[in-house]
Amino acid sequence: MRGVVMTKPGEVIVTDRDEPQIEEPTDAVIRLAATCVCGSDLWSYRGVQDADHQVMGHEYVGVVEEVGDEVSTVKVGDFVVGSFMISDNTCEICQAGFQSKCVHVESAASIGTQAERARIPMADGTLVATPGQPTQEQIPALLAASDVLGTGWFGADAAQAGPGKTIAVVGDGAVGLMAILAAKQLGAERIIAMSRHPERQELARYYGATDIVEERGDEGVEKIKELTGGLGAHGVVEAVGTQESFMQAVGATRGGGYLGYVGVSHEVQIPGIELFFAGIHALGGPAPVRRYLPELIRLIWDGEIDPGKVFDLTLPLEEAAEAYAAMDERRATKVMLTF
Amino acid sequence: MRGVVMTKPGEVIVTDRDEPQIEEPTDAVIRLAATCVCGSDLWSYRGVQDADHQVMGHEYVGVVEEVGDEVSTVKVGDFVVGSFMISDNTCEICQAGFQSKCVHVESAASIGTQAERARIPMADGTLVATPGQPTQEQIPALLAASDVLGTGWFGADAAQAGPGKTIAVVGDGAVGLMAILAAKQLGAERIIAMSRHPERQELARYYGATDIVEERGDEGVEKIKELTGGLGAHGVVEAVGTQESFMQAVGATRGGGYLGYVGVSHEVQIPGIELFFAGIHALGGPAPVRRYLPELIRLIWDGEIDPGKVFDLTLPLEEAAEAYAAMDERRATKVMLTF
Repeated sequence: MRGVVMTKPGEVIVTDRDEPQIEEPTDAVIRLAATCVCGSDLWSYRGVQDADHQVMGHEYVGVVEEVGDEVSTVKVGDFVVGSFMISDNTCEICQAGFQSKCVHVESAASIGTQAERARIPMADGTLVATPGQPTQEQIPALLAASDVLGTGWFGADAAQAGPGKTIAVVGDGAVGLMAILAAKQLGAERIIAMSRHPERQELARYYGATDIVEERGDEGVEKIKELTGGLGAHGVVEAVGTQESFMQAVGATRGGGYLGYVGVSHEVQIPGIELFFAGIHALGGPAPVRRYLPELIRLIWDGEIDPGKVFDLTLPLEEAAEAYAAMDERRATKVMLTF
Repeated sequence: MRGVVMTKPGEVIVTDRDEPQIEEPTDAVIRLAATCVCGSDLWSYRGVQDADHQVMGHEYVGVVEEVGDEVSTVKVGDFVVGSFMISDNTCEICQAGFQSKCVHVESAASIGTQAERARIPMADGTLVATPGQPTQEQIPALLAASDVLGTGWFGADAAQAGPGKTIAVVGDGAVGLMAILAAKQLGAERIIAMSRHPERQELARYYGATDIVEERGDEGVEKIKELTGGLGAHGVVEAVGTQESFMQAVGATRGGGYLGYVGVSHEVQIPGIELFFAGIHALGGPAPVRRYLPELIRLIWDGEIDPGKVFDLTLPLEEAAEAYAAMDERRATKVMLTF
């Protein structure tokens, strides 16, 4: 089968890979309907993380082609969405809703779902079947649920978005936009998008942003305070992962407020004393997308949310190199790869 | 009146200070029944923070001697306990339970309560009267409520101590010991004290610790994991504030678990990526003691808790220099100063 491989930072090829097989009785093999490039794939593309002929991709939707003997919740022919974090969904940590910290957790990134087919371990714990076969229009939305929607939703949930709340979102990438969608869906009264890009501001407003703040860093914090009677937002979602964005998110959260941080904070050093005197709740990390999947699929199926719009470019898998380049150069927010 | 002044790091004197006066109609002036030295006072004593002839002390209990015209909830003659953070208790942040981040917050440290009398601003929002005049035996317990008990309680609450939970406490100083008391009172099933000092281990067990871990750093984390089926504690209280203790607390918290950090984290740098992949809830900072004071006073009054035992040395105010030295040299856990 064909699949994406990053030979070294900045170099992406599409090449022949071994066909996936059932290896464990809890595995499923799926044929992908679509996959995509994640903002976090750019960490290795840009050399922040190393890359040496590694398979790429951790987001996926598709049709089950084969299941192991112990798989009971999905069957051949089902259309499924899975989390980018593979989980058993039965351990104590999963049962507490933190499937991304499952005792048997694996990352789908090690499988490489930018490919025609993929072996999904712990299929019962990882995959959720849709009520039927989706339309072509529903596929991007379901694909978003695999990571960016679930991650943005986790961020908004961690920020305690809800009725009467003012939520600020730092970052206008796909995850930030999905956090805006989630905050709106969770009932937030006011949603402040921190964004400098006109076309993303427009998408932010489409998803529910009521205010736009272009300032960054301390100026951005001051602006949020101005907009919130000097207090700061009730909740802030950090969806970038840089030093500036992280501290901006900390500073924009009111005392006793809630910070949800979902940007992968690779090179961030948080001064303990600043976090201490901020006096805020913080929750973040790889999102337990599996917790939210059934509800997200329902919302998509019922047409209540439209997350698929974050894909502003669609390319065939064979053009994956261009997909990476477009995202790296910010010509695209998020690229869907099709077959 | 007599009061404690730190002339420079490491040098504490007792000297004549101006008598406090009512300055604002919301002030009260109290005569202290007792005060004490805080672990955080050692930061300036040891030169981590600067000190230049500053008044000292932020913990206090005593009798109201005078009130401003607008004070309505405490009256002359009342015995009162106040938080180390002065708050109006009416603003939006206070009403959300984060009085230590009150929009009008002041630190009692700027008043210097290691003195015979003290002006307490925003008396209605800061002070809570006891049901009557306390016995001599109740005074240390009530004094503890002013900071260390309230701070330990906040830590245990932030760590979500409750029935069925395993709570680890990093630090065996007064705040750590009070966090153990709080975790027990809140119903935790298992309380692991991280302590190397035999006499503090004994006090930790007195307050409710079920297990003692002497290892620190990564070894300490491993030990907590061993004791919790490989998962980590449901909740961890960080009550030291060093780099090692903070990261030990992060590492000892299970995925999706709760970290309450109440040690003042002066020189801590938290690697963002480690916090990210820990996938934990975190809440900390200066404790909103005022939120808990009515309940803490009730528990003390009814004899349900005995926090006064953290004072293992009592000296007259005039011997404050020895009080600081004893705590600095760890000859005492916490020193009460009397008149």
